[in-house]
Amino acid sequence: MRITNIRDITVPLEGNISNAIVSFNDHTVSLVAVVSDQTRNGKVVVGFGFNSIGRYAQSGILRDRIIPRILNCPPELLLATNGTEFDAAAVASIAMKNEKPGGHGDRAGAVGALELAIWDLNAKLADEPAWMTIAKNFSHSVEADSAKVYAAGGYYYAEDSASRLRKELEAYQAQGYGAFKMKIGGATLTEDLDRIDTALMIAGSGKNLAVDANGRFDLDSALEYGEAIAPLGLRWYEEPGDPLDYKLNRELTQYYEGAIATGENLFSRRDMINLVQFGGMRKEKDVFQMDAGLSYGLTEYVRMVQELEKLGFDRKQCHPHGGHLINLHIAIGLGLGGCEAYPGVFQPFGGYAPECVLEDGHVSPTDAPGFGLEQKTELKDHLLVLS
Amino acid sequence: MRITNIRDITVPLEGNISNAIVSFNDHTVSLVAVVSDQTRNGKVVVGFGFNSIGRYAQSGILRDRIIPRILNCPPELLLATNGTEFDAAAVASIAMKNEKPGGHGDRAGAVGALELAIWDLNAKLADEPAWMTIAKNFSHSVEADSAKVYAAGGYYYAEDSASRLRKELEAYQAQGYGAFKMKIGGATLTEDLDRIDTALMIAGSGKNLAVDANGRFDLDSALEYGEAIAPLGLRWYEEPGDPLDYKLNRELTQYYEGAIATGENLFSRRDMINLVQFGGMRKEKDVFQMDAGLSYGLTEYVRMVQELEKLGFDRKQCHPHGGHLINLHIAIGLGLGGCEAYPGVFQPFGGYAPECVLEDGHVSPTDAPGFGLEQKTELKDHLLVLS
Repeated sequence: MRITNIRDITVPLEGNISNAIVSFNDHTVSLVAVVSDQTRNGKVVVGFGFNSIGRYAQSGILRDRIIPRILNCPPELLLATNGTEFDAAAVASIAMKNEKPGGHGDRAGAVGALELAIWDLNAKLADEPAWMTIAKNFSHSVEADSAKVYAAGGYYYAEDSASRLRKELEAYQAQGYGAFKMKIGGATLTEDLDRIDTALMIAGSGKNLAVDANGRFDLDSALEYGEAIAPLGLRWYEEPGDPLDYKLNRELTQYYEGAIATGENLFSRRDMINLVQFGGMRKEKDVFQMDAGLSYGLTEYVRMVQELEKLGFDRKQCHPHGGHLINLHIAIGLGLGGCEAYPGVFQPFGGYAPECVLEDGHVSPTDAPGFGLEQKTELKDHLLVLS
Repeated sequence: MRITNIRDITVPLEGNISNAIVSFNDHTVSLVAVVSDQTRNGKVVVGFGFNSIGRYAQSGILRDRIIPRILNCPPELLLATNGTEFDAAAVASIAMKNEKPGGHGDRAGAVGALELAIWDLNAKLADEPAWMTIAKNFSHSVEADSAKVYAAGGYYYAEDSASRLRKELEAYQAQGYGAFKMKIGGATLTEDLDRIDTALMIAGSGKNLAVDANGRFDLDSALEYGEAIAPLGLRWYEEPGDPLDYKLNRELTQYYEGAIATGENLFSRRDMINLVQFGGMRKEKDVFQMDAGLSYGLTEYVRMVQELEKLGFDRKQCHPHGGHLINLHIAIGLGLGGCEAYPGVFQPFGGYAPECVLEDGHVSPTDAPGFGLEQKTELKDHLLVLS
């Protein structure tokens, strides 16, 4: 059994929206196909992965460094000892051959897209949904074949208003979402508090609404917003400061009693350990949002979860960033606290397939083999290009 | 005045050598040319930069993201207020449009190569060596038009021996180098101590010899090596642990009394501040080796130096990694402690031009405008491709 080819395409993200820091107009995603020499039902088995949402495609790094290392490697080194699946950890490790420590940025997304395609491939070879393959591999006993989700949206739009925000959240609610996340920090505190008020009218309670500053604030602003929102008892207060400003995060946790969420912009286990060692993250309270597609794939992500557990945190504190099918399967397979959903934005990757059932704030994937990306209407044409 | 084009080529590094972590066989460098609409002596003025040594070319990120942002930007936004030079800080900032915080990896090298080409261009427009342009821009009063250097080498070779190492360092000594750096951690402690003994015979004294573990050690090994080398009074002990393992660095500084050097794998001001806040770096002792070409260019590098000074460190504690002409000009222009030199390895970028004078452990660049890369024999052909 061997990999016969690896292809990638760059897919633009749809998003005429912005958070407190960036506009998403020019963001792109690498969609990677790993082609095997195996067939199922007369068709060649191909695994698909992508480097999540919110950064950029990594075609250059994939083609110049990562893909040649895998294709030039003796095929047996990429196989699991059982010989019936590929060894995702070996693939991730060989993809990083001769890469220096530190500098966990774009290459983490390139490796992530490739490594996740291996999981899709393995699940398809086993003819089972990816969450099942993931659970077996990491000996996790799955309690439910669904994950708790929240609808992430509430971005700033060029033509924005309270009624636009209300309609957006009402639409998510009509789809079955009971929890929401919205952006803050792109307007004044007064304006943002008004927006939060509007959102709370739909969410019903602070515990159903999270706010996300996308790393914009300095310590003073983070504390000022924290003080203003503290009485609302929000679900969480996300990325108040620069994702690498552990000192700010720690100081904020000393004043803000509600949950802090962060980690989507930490792309390695080492960076995450720094967050825990220096960032003041609290057990049974704060939320970790690392995202496998942006951080070397599931192998590294599981190492992060294991590291957290070793340090006394609960994996239920993990809610991966991203809002797409891959992280849904990961959240179920590993028994995480839940995951994000982008029901309205970031097509063709955001949200789930129409066949996925959303009930009581939980999403169930279908029984389609792998991550079931083929069922995602908006993705189908892109996958065909790669097949 | 405007930029008419930006081109890049990928240049392989010559290096059949390895440190404790990687082999350099497949490492590459992005050489970037920024073409202006100005002429000097009848020739179009072109600025050259590259993303230092030891990582990879960034052609994908340059072409997909960085270069289009600059070429699509209104030209007047790229000009300094005096209208006679380009605004490197503006170029770096526009190059990062819509990039999210965190994830300081490959893109930092892409921006670095471009931003440094702007400095080369500005110096050529002013018809002066780059160190002079740099000093003027940052109001630094230059004490000497030379920088203290050390010869970095002592890698592990497939066919290695004490006599090979001795000959290598003797060759550096014959060229005029009085201080050296060698690798450790790629062999057993006993073997490394033998190698250090060999090197000390040439260096004469521990104060002329630094050792570099390239981030290989865990805390126990870092302490074990530290204890073994402490009596030798070495110049410094470089990157004992993972560059992002601030806790390890801090614990080591509590036991190892000699200087610790690190920072070449920190690619942003934010990461460097974390090193200072959590890594135990000591004033008037430890060494910072951040490298502009790997970390968004000189604009960001100067912000790092300013941050260090604000925190009570001395800029003489800065010795940029890299060992090439660009960092030589930066070290002189900013009055840093010195810089690295790769006299024997990493061609075509390592080391200096034949016209540069090496005397008493100090290197002087020539009066060639810009970084004088055109005088570097091994680089000439590559620059011609881009011209």
